[in-house]
Amino acid sequence: MELLSRTPPGWARLAALRFDEVLVDHAHCEKKAAANALSMLAAFPDVPGLPRAMARLAREEAGHLAQVLHLLERRGLRLGRDPGDPYAQALQTQVRQPRAERLLDRLLVAALIELRSQERLALLAEHLVEPDLRDFYVRLATAEAGHGELFWKLAVKVSPEEAPHRGAQLATAEARLVERLPLRAAIH
Amino acid sequence: MELLSRTPPGWARLAALRFDEVLVDHAHCEKKAAANALSMLAAFPDVPGLPRAMARLAREEAGHLAQVLHLLERRGLRLGRDPGDPYAQALQTQVRQPRAERLLDRLLVAALIELRSQERLALLAEHLVEPDLRDFYVRLATAEAGHGELFWKLAVKVSPEEAPHRGAQLATAEARLVERLPLRAAIH
Repeated sequence: MELLSRTPPGWARLAALRFDEVLVDHAHCEKKAAANALSMLAAFPDVPGLPRAMARLAREEAGHLAQVLHLLERRGLRLGRDPGDPYAQALQTQVRQPRAERLLDRLLVAALIELRSQERLALLAEHLVEPDLRDFYVRLATAEAGHGELFWKLAVKVSPEEAPHRGAQLATAEARLVERLPLRAAIH
Repeated sequence: MELLSRTPPGWARLAALRFDEVLVDHAHCEKKAAANALSMLAAFPDVPGLPRAMARLAREEAGHLAQVLHLLERRGLRLGRDPGDPYAQALQTQVRQPRAERLLDRLLVAALIELRSQERLALLAEHLVEPDLRDFYVRLATAEAGHGELFWKLAVKVSPEEAPHRGAQLATAEARLVERLPLRAAIH
């Protein structure tokens, strides 16, 4: 699975300029990634291989969250309430409700969010000036690589016939969404 | 903080006898522990030190969850839906609703659940016959030690005056609950 668009060039400049806001949003993203993995496991415990893959993912994302929170503290920032993420919320409205369709769509939406996040963490790393921050984001972007693939492989496993077609539909919707949404000092 | 009662001796015999059921329930407990840590972080992001402590805890519990799920798979067991835990549900009804009280009570209830879980994992380890399983539960009980203390210390930090009194009230309620609930082939 691949993203069908690239992030507009203005995003990375904005994100590097207003990095503290992005960092707070990034913590919320890691928290939601860990919570989503646990929620997938709770909702689909009988899909072979899914619970363990999600448990490992939750562990990894919670570890990233702890690292981002450490950086927040060092910069004297507070986490605050999660104001919500219009990008992820809009994608989630694409998830169909019957159980089999919901499982496939949740896996595909998660794959797309992971791919977009990884693209943006890598872009952010390129645009950060402080060497420590840059190294931190290079490490995180590397660690996140493979998460999109994990969700995509699970999607193909649970629905080998429908996954390519539905994946292309959702990837198209995702690319349009990125084009439509205003740039924010946030990961998405 | 200490538990005010010991688990009845019949529990460990039942748990060792119907270990497969306990193992499935244990996976659900680890999942709820990880999800609860993330939920605490989302609900109380402005309590100093709480978000990072909860992120680390979520990472650790998700790691235990992955290990328990691995053991489930090796025994040919399926996770299945979480049928819910009458013990934890009954304790949660004790949580008062105004924000400050809710924070204190959620910390104290989490401390008690962690202490009881640790007691039972250690008891289970003593009663298991297979050396691999016994070692696994000794390791997990050791890893869980300190989680009760973590929640208790946060409780004292956020509410130094009320924590001892309210902690004693809730510990009394917890001990009565353990006495009242029928023994189950489950962690609680």
